[in-house]
Formats: sequence, structure tokens, C-alpha cells
Amino acid sequence: MRIDVLTLFPEMFEGVLGSSILKKAAEKKAAEYHTHNFREFSDNKHQSVDDYPYGGGAGMVLKPQPIFDALEQIAAPTLEGKKPRVILLCPQGERFTQKKAEELAREEQLVFVCGHYEGYDERIREFAVTDEISIGDFVLTGGELGAMVIIDSVVRLLPGVLGNEDSPVLDSYSSGLLEHPHYTRPADFRGMKVPDVLLSGNHKHIEEWRQKESLRRTFERRPDLLDSYELSPAEKKWLDEIKSENR
Amino acid sequence: MRIDVLTLFPEMFEGVLGSSILKKAAEKKAAEYHTHNFREFSDNKHQSVDDYPYGGGAGMVLKPQPIFDALEQIAAPTLEGKKPRVILLCPQGERFTQKKAEELAREEQLVFVCGHYEGYDERIREFAVTDEISIGDFVLTGGELGAMVIIDSVVRLLPGVLGNEDSPVLDSYSSGLLEHPHYTRPADFRGMKVPDVLLSGNHKHIEEWRQKESLRRTFERRPDLLDSYELSPAEKKWLDEIKSENR
Repeated sequence: MRIDVLTLFPEMFEGVLGSSILKKAAEKKAAEYHTHNFREFSDNKHQSVDDYPYGGGAGMVLKPQPIFDALEQIAAPTLEGKKPRVILLCPQGERFTQKKAEELAREEQLVFVCGHYEGYDERIREFAVTDEISIGDFVLTGGELGAMVIIDSVVRLLPGVLGNEDSPVLDSYSSGLLEHPHYTRPADFRGMKVPDVLLSGNHKHIEEWRQKESLRRTFERRPDLLDSYELSPAEKKWLDEIKSENR
Repeated sequence: MRIDVLTLFPEMFEGVLGSSILKKAAEKKAAEYHTHNFREFSDNKHQSVDDYPYGGGAGMVLKPQPIFDALEQIAAPTLEGKKPRVILLCPQGERFTQKKAEELAREEQLVFVCGHYEGYDERIREFAVTDEISIGDFVLTGGELGAMVIIDSVVRLLPGVLGNEDSPVLDSYSSGLLEHPHYTRPADFRGMKVPDVLLSGNHKHIEEWRQKESLRRTFERRPDLLDSYELSPAEKKWLDEIKSENR
């Protein structure tokens, strides 16, 4: 997968793209990253990329020209005429989810457009991008962190990127429930102890405890996830027990 | 505000903490950042920070010792006995929102604990941290990007960090509706035109157009936001018009 980022702060990406799984993915040639300072695509001599809003008001608006010109060079349609996905990070966009990450992981090229302004000229939204995405209901300084979040969640899904020891199948969300608690050595850390069942060696009991604690955590913290989860008969019984304990 | 980050990848933070608003905030002494590799706090000679899970299973679990020891040094209670906020990034945590950012912006010290593992030993959650936060329903490789997102959204709220030109009052969400479209020069870019009303010079019409487009965008993209928004009589009428246009 080829990943291009249009940003005024390419240096923000170096540490993130050069560490951990994203670094490994590049070494394994599963992904390649290209960051572009779109100021270099500005056609005026001051290299300005923003201008005052029509109709007045505070703040500056990102001009269409540098973005359209950059995309023309970077995100040209393939020989088959297929246009790459061009993703605009913005608060008004579709909320990013794991399902969207899985969808984007099937693409050959992703292009991210990151602004740092009051707003984007509406023509960028309408005619230059294919997706507008928001990572959540909070205000960030620019689109860069959102792009990094999407890149990380997508690249780790590409074939060959994760080893067995960190298989994506074992992550939260894949089962539809939150994960059960984990414990490692020592069994007694400054008086804080590991539950007996995990030290028992009885695998059936351990498995049951984990399933039940996973249900309990989901019920207590994210009951909304239970709406779209199909409970087995055993899980139904446990959930009733958990509910009566909580009363 | 003092911000400490416990991570195995301190180099991931350099570009983000050293650019744009976060850099300015440090220069203005509104915030200071300290990243710590918690491997240095491991008490065994191999500097290991993870171990196998009790009860078996794939993946590794972050041990309690390095985190507890690091927090003891970094997040000591103040002279008044007040404990700093210690935030664990994890998928099971409370969902991060702008309201949470505003709450955290009132603290004097924030400490972030970022893992890169199958899981954290449950005793870290129970006894060492004050908040567990998730930035969304997607799987990331570690807690680092979540910590950066929270740091950015919190630091930009600190007094003196943003100039007038990028005042937080003008952001999306603060009004309760999504922002209206923005346009800047040229009025005709490759045949794509700016709406006439914005070129009219009639400020009353421009204001009305913006309010209505803000409502329209919210209705089309985030109707859930309207549930908690109090419509003025004019807005009520516009919303009815928008609904009938969409039929």
C-alpha cells in the first residue's frame, strides 16, 4: 500500500512512521509512506496556502489551488482509470471505526489531506476528496494526528505486518466484547494478588472466568456493545448473574 | 501544566510535541513535556517489562513493577497530598470527548501510560491509574497516538496558548452544530464557483445563509447533535425547509 500525506508539518510524522509496527511494515515492504508539504504546490510567490473567507469572519480558509495541484501529481488515477482514496480529516466527517479501517485496508493507495486552519474551501470537500473522516468529537489543532491514527489502524491490518505474537484476531472489538482482565507475575505484588482461578491450572475454569469477566466489563463499561452481540445460552445465564450482583 | 508520558517509544513523540501549537505552548511556558522510557524502571537485569499471562493464552502482559516504580518517581503526590491524574490509554476506557478535554485542562499535571502489548496487568488499572481513556472504537498498535490526541486537545485549551486568530471559541462543537461551508478566493476556480450570496456584501443574508447551512450539514451528517441543541424559532423554520427539500 502506498500512503501519501499532504500537510504543512511533515516533520510531525517522522517519529510515528519511523517506530514500532509502522516502521516494520515499511521494512517488510507492506507499506510505503510519502509526506508532502503542500506549501510547495502553491502557485504564488509568497507560497501562501490560505486566504480570507468570502463573506467575512475570523480565521483563514485553505485555498483550493495548492490541494488540487498536489493531488493531480500525487493521486493520479491508475492506468485502469481507478481514482485513489483521498481522505480529508475534519470534524464534520464520518466517524472513524474499525469497520472503516478494514475497508481502507483493501485499497492500494491512500492520500490524506491535513489542514491547520479555520476551514477548508468547500470545493476541496466537494470535488477533490473521496472521504471525510473524523476520529471523534473533540477539537484538534490539525488533521495530522487523525491521519496518523488512521494510518496505524489500517497498516496493522495489511497482510504480513503483524507477527503471530500480536495477531489482530486477539484484539478488543474483534469478538464484539471488551477483553477480560490480564495478570502476569508476580502472583502477589505489594499485597495486590492475582485471582486464584488463574493459578489453578484448571483450563475449563479459567476459560469460563475469562468469558464471564469479559461480559462483566462490557456490561459495566460499554453496554451499547451488547445490543449487537449474540449471547450464547451460557453467556445469557452469566449476564443475568452479573446483573443481579450489580443490584 | 506538566505532562509526563510513560512509553517504550519516546521518539514517537518528538515530531508532534515539537511542532505547531504544542511547540508554541512549550515556548510560552504554558506546558512542559517529559517523555520517559519505562523500560529504564525495570528492576531485572534484562530490562524486561512484560511477561506471560497467568492462565495461559497468546500475547504478553505488561508487568506492574516498572509502571508502579516509574509513577512513584514521576507522579508523586504534591505537598498538599493531591495525586496527579494518571491516564491509561486502552480500548476499554471511557470515550474521550471535548468535555473530558476541558476537564483535564484544569489539572496541573497529567501523566500518560502507553502500552504496546496484548494487555496491562489488571493491578495497574486498579491501583495505579486515575482514568482509563479510549479515543474511539478502533484498534491501534499502542497508546502513544491516543496520548498525543489528548495532549493536543488539552494543551490548546490552556490560557495563552492560542492567539486570537485561532480562538477555540470558533471551533466546531462549541456552538453545538457543525460548521457552515467556507470559501476563499478565487470566486471561480476551474469552473467551480462560490455561492453568490457570499459575494453579495449583504451581511444579513450572509449570516442567515451560514446559519442555515450549518443546520443543514448537522441534519445531514450528525442528526444526533440536534437532540441536545435548542433551536431558535428561525432555526426551527429553516430545519423544516431543509427536511422538505430532502424528501
